Amino acid sequence: VISDSSQFAPGMPAITYGLRGIAYYELRLRGPKQDLHSGTFGGAVTNPAGALVGLLAALKDEHGRIQVPGFYDEVVPLTERERDEFRSLPLTDAEFMKSLGVNGLSGEAKYTSLERRWARPTCDINGLTSGYQGEGAKTVLPARASAKFSFRLVPNQDPKRISASLRTFLQERLPPGIEMELIDFHGAPGVVVSLESPYMGAAAAAIKAGFGREPVYIREGGSIPIVTTFGKELGADVLLLGWGQNDDNTHSPNEKFCLEDFHRGTLASAQLWEELARIAADNANKN
Amino acid sequence: VISDSSQFAPGMPAITYGLRGIAYYELRLRGPKQDLHSGTFGGAVTNPAGALVGLLAALKDEHGRIQVPGFYDEVVPLTERERDEFRSLPLTDAEFMKSLGVNGLSGEAKYTSLERRWARPTCDINGLTSGYQGEGAKTVLPARASAKFSFRLVPNQDPKRISASLRTFLQERLPPGIEMELIDFHGAPGVVVSLESPYMGAAAAAIKAGFGREPVYIREGGSIPIVTTFGKELGADVLLLGWGQNDDNTHSPNEKFCLEDFHRGTLASAQLWEELARIAADNANKN
Repeated sequence: VISDSSQFAPGMPAITYGLRGIAYYELRLRGPKQDLHSGTFGGAVTNPAGALVGLLAALKDEHGRIQVPGFYDEVVPLTERERDEFRSLPLTDAEFMKSLGVNGLSGEAKYTSLERRWARPTCDINGLTSGYQGEGAKTVLPARASAKFSFRLVPNQDPKRISASLRTFLQERLPPGIEMELIDFHGAPGVVVSLESPYMGAAAAAIKAGFGREPVYIREGGSIPIVTTFGKELGADVLLLGWGQNDDNTHSPNEKFCLEDFHRGTLASAQLWEELARIAADNANKN
Repeated sequence: VISDSSQFAPGMPAITYGLRGIAYYELRLRGPKQDLHSGTFGGAVTNPAGALVGLLAALKDEHGRIQVPGFYDEVVPLTERERDEFRSLPLTDAEFMKSLGVNGLSGEAKYTSLERRWARPTCDINGLTSGYQGEGAKTVLPARASAKFSFRLVPNQDPKRISASLRTFLQERLPPGIEMELIDFHGAPGVVVSLESPYMGAAAAAIKAGFGREPVYIREGGSIPIVTTFGKELGADVLLLGWGQNDDNTHSPNEKFCLEDFHRGTLASAQLWEELARIAADNANKN
């Protein structure tokens, strides 16, 4: 039982039954042996920053689909039950945009925002570095350019297979006069706990007892790599149950925890062990 | 007479009769009001770094042609005389690549390296900045991304007209959820001094006297904005005559100036004023 997730909203306790995995990279490109004058050389020398934006832009098409061959091959699609459950949750795109301070959203075509965040793989650039970054103008043709970027993965995508395909994808598109180094930082697969697991039933009963209502079933777009390790090493489903709220400012200034949630969560947690003990007793009787 | 150019190579004095202009920009993109967790939000929120690489990659097609509408409308094409002159200069692509430490070159299709550097307009990224730039991995979806980039221009491209077209080009491609600011740093048109100018003849005669051989006629890819100002304000052609070499490490450690060039250049400079005085006397007689 890991309590590193939140309720969906105030008064809406949740069971988080899925997490995305991750594959994180740094791509370093090298061109000429030193920075050059962009006037004297520009136009005839491949610019590493130009090569970098070309390679990164090629990772997705105009529908937000990732272009690395085989990327979607192992993706377990969302079930209709999941899509219905997500659709029933009270979070409109208008509210979501307001919370972010943006005037529009984008992502993989034909999926809702929650589906895109929780249950679809994606690619984000995490950092870009090249050339002159100070105030004003400098006419440099940079010798190097680099990016940090990462895929979020869903079951059953394999980070190792995706890394290999990505490396080939980039090498094939590398323009003349550029050398690349692809650093593969860390990979963890996505995870989903079956909604049919008896432990899910135990968690739902505990939440009903503590909060006076059924939980909603949600997923989370981030990664908790130990969930996979626990599942593999212990041979047990992992329950992701947290009693806080998304706006609790976790690990941040003004961190808070609602007293009402503290009391309801205490009740639910106590009840959970009763429910799990019942399953253990049933299993023992069967054996 | 401006001495801010070089000979083409040792023993090959040159008259630089053209310079490229410049139009330099900083593009700043803003997405969400703060950096976000790339797991929790990635896939549903437009990533400013992703938007940036998309916009920058769209500036050129796969043949190195700039895609901003009207960009090439005013470009004065190279004459056959110029192309022949450039082709006769002793600089192979193999030598050029070796001097840069690269294993390949790229640029606008159907032009040689010297044509690309001296007489064709181009676009180079001068700097990229976004998100996490430190060691290792950080799973951030950055709130901002920016790039510095510049066009090199040739006669008769107008930096103002190109800036206006560029702004529209970028705005039209801006993805939802991103706001842009385009800072227009400075613009200067390209310049070419007619090879038929009588001052060209004077410079050629002076070089012959000082160096014992005819000059080669070259252009330079960089920009010296005052050349345009002199031409406009003084109503006179500008001669670009320099006696140094490209490897003199100008403005750098170990700057040098070859004694032989010092003596030959002194002779040529002295002779130049004789030649120019003769033109002035001819003009006075005509009047």
